[in-house]
Amino acid sequence: MTVSDRWLLPDGVEDILPPLAGRIESLRRDVMDTCQRWGYQLVIPPLVEYLESLFTGTGNDLQLQTFKLTDQLTGRMMGVRADMTPQAARIDAHTLAQDGITRLCYAGHVLHTRPRHMLTGRTPIQAGCELFGSASEAADMEVIRLMLETLRVAGLPRIHLDLAHVSIYQSLMGAADFGHETEAAIFDAMARKSVPELDELLGHCEAGSPGARLRDLARVSGGREALEQARDILIGFSEDLDAALGKLSRVSEMLAESYPEVSLGFDFCELRGYNYHTGLVFAAYVPGHGDSVAKGGRYDAIGSDFGRARPATGFSLDIRALVSLGERPFKVAGAIWAPSDEDAALEEAILELRANHSVIRALPEDAGTNPFVKGCDRHLVKRDGKWVVENLG
Amino acid sequence: MTVSDRWLLPDGVEDILPPLAGRIESLRRDVMDTCQRWGYQLVIPPLVEYLESLFTGTGNDLQLQTFKLTDQLTGRMMGVRADMTPQAARIDAHTLAQDGITRLCYAGHVLHTRPRHMLTGRTPIQAGCELFGSASEAADMEVIRLMLETLRVAGLPRIHLDLAHVSIYQSLMGAADFGHETEAAIFDAMARKSVPELDELLGHCEAGSPGARLRDLARVSGGREALEQARDILIGFSEDLDAALGKLSRVSEMLAESYPEVSLGFDFCELRGYNYHTGLVFAAYVPGHGDSVAKGGRYDAIGSDFGRARPATGFSLDIRALVSLGERPFKVAGAIWAPSDEDAALEEAILELRANHSVIRALPEDAGTNPFVKGCDRHLVKRDGKWVVENLG
Repeated sequence: MTVSDRWLLPDGVEDILPPLAGRIESLRRDVMDTCQRWGYQLVIPPLVEYLESLFTGTGNDLQLQTFKLTDQLTGRMMGVRADMTPQAARIDAHTLAQDGITRLCYAGHVLHTRPRHMLTGRTPIQAGCELFGSASEAADMEVIRLMLETLRVAGLPRIHLDLAHVSIYQSLMGAADFGHETEAAIFDAMARKSVPELDELLGHCEAGSPGARLRDLARVSGGREALEQARDILIGFSEDLDAALGKLSRVSEMLAESYPEVSLGFDFCELRGYNYHTGLVFAAYVPGHGDSVAKGGRYDAIGSDFGRARPATGFSLDIRALVSLGERPFKVAGAIWAPSDEDAALEEAILELRANHSVIRALPEDAGTNPFVKGCDRHLVKRDGKWVVENLG
Repeated sequence: MTVSDRWLLPDGVEDILPPLAGRIESLRRDVMDTCQRWGYQLVIPPLVEYLESLFTGTGNDLQLQTFKLTDQLTGRMMGVRADMTPQAARIDAHTLAQDGITRLCYAGHVLHTRPRHMLTGRTPIQAGCELFGSASEAADMEVIRLMLETLRVAGLPRIHLDLAHVSIYQSLMGAADFGHETEAAIFDAMARKSVPELDELLGHCEAGSPGARLRDLARVSGGREALEQARDILIGFSEDLDAALGKLSRVSEMLAESYPEVSLGFDFCELRGYNYHTGLVFAAYVPGHGDSVAKGGRYDAIGSDFGRARPATGFSLDIRALVSLGERPFKVAGAIWAPSDEDAALEEAILELRANHSVIRALPEDAGTNPFVKGCDRHLVKRDGKWVVENLG
């Protein structure tokens, strides 16, 4: 390996430099503070866990996304977290084990074996909120509201929110009984929204059958008119589906009222990235960016897989991506330049200033340094035996 | 694997819950803010890198501490960072590549294959500062001062600071030429401060030889009197050693003057944990805790290994450990309880309050919940058609 190769970072892995690192830190703090002002308590889940606990209640996608490690202390397999939501669910179910409602938030690096989307890296900084113990629509609304609030904090203009309900696809699929291979092909074609493939796979299905309804549903997407079309397609199929459509309808009405500036859409085939979800799901988009900027939804099943049935809903987002997309003001305050003088009075003056200001102390090598280049707009100078701050220039 | 096994976390890996997580976040912010007020700019190094760049310029210990992963995109080996200092050095040397002095700070999880010390976990939250481009004693002093300042911020009482200079051991060893096996045995015995073993390994060395000086040096430790004893043992050996002792002497004098409350010690055999250091090194201890709470020193060699010779010094610490040891006041502000009422005026009142307060919104399942238990000391009530905040009780 040559010296120049040593510089290479793996694809999707990056050094975050100033001032971008400062902007990320600032947004991370503001997002966490926002969540805490909504009553969500901070937890710090571990970077690694045994695979069994990482994967409990989650789907295959997450397993493929997770880097595996051998624990040298026990010989058992561990994984580096690829998603912090299942960790929060484990903390709620076991470590905290509180009765009633529990609200948790978190922020930290996660690691993916492959980029989840061509626009994202492999080490997103995931932040999120999870609400456990409530199956109510009020809980669904709270996490959607909080997600929209964090996107506002991030300075994202013009949000588009896609709503879906994973049990629609699951119910139709469960009733159809296509066999494993065909099911996988349909799932794949639905995820890619490939209508011709779906016509081929489901073309033989009789009108009114689950397959025919799936095929028709794949053609439906868009605003609130799509919800009406879906209702026509799914009418009379099952009470579960009626309940799912009812929930989508009520939540979208509440959102349209509270957030007229957010455009709403429905996507009945959205399946990608919902590894463990069971009910209402949602994803936020901004114009010109193909990947969602925040997503979440209901995942009541993880709790029961962990041996403690808990309704759950929440959302998460990538702080790193939000900073690139947002229009959030960020100003680095100018620093004060201090000479490399060993005067004890200078030391004292610097100490005092550092309570509220950045002070950069010149070192012997700084003889020719221009303090402006180092981000300074003021400097410390001795006037009549006293150290005072003056503007540079 | 049974349900109960799924709860187990690997040894040395933990869930951090409220309120501890909040205390850690608060200290993390204050430490980073302190570093930035000293002119250190925040960087966010990646969680994983190729092994070659992680290990450039570092010793064998760090390699054993690092979890290895195969990059599925390239088939090359990556490692999860076990130490962020070499990452900062790589960023300084290559990614930033600035002329003159560069000051960087960082904070994040690192991962160790085994606990570094029986008192520490395997996922410390490392925070640190690194100063590149200055070989001066003023730079050494700056990082020691900043380290002491961060320990003050962490609320640590009574700091003991051990000073050492790794070139003392290296110079003597280099001159002695014992052969690889004996050298390893001596290193091991020195690290464990085993005087009997060292007497056996080095007993045959003639007075005045490097081996005899090493043997005598192993008996020396303690306060400033130890520095005098070391000077007697090392006298006339080489200019390099005289320079090292001179540096220790000057730095300890400056520290004794500026920080009379910090007790100073010298340990000429301290070798553990200094994987890449080349000059003055230091470690801070608190009474009753056997592991250092912060450590650092000069590591001028990494720069040249990276193809760009840069003098460097810095320190790092484990935020998680500091929070357990420090006596730092931390108060969770009481929250405001809001009823589960769909009144639009309530919604507005909550929105306004959340600019400065935590407001927890009751959900339908909260019918019997005592708001005190949820950390609330006030609640929102409707009086004469207006929502107002009143104390609970």
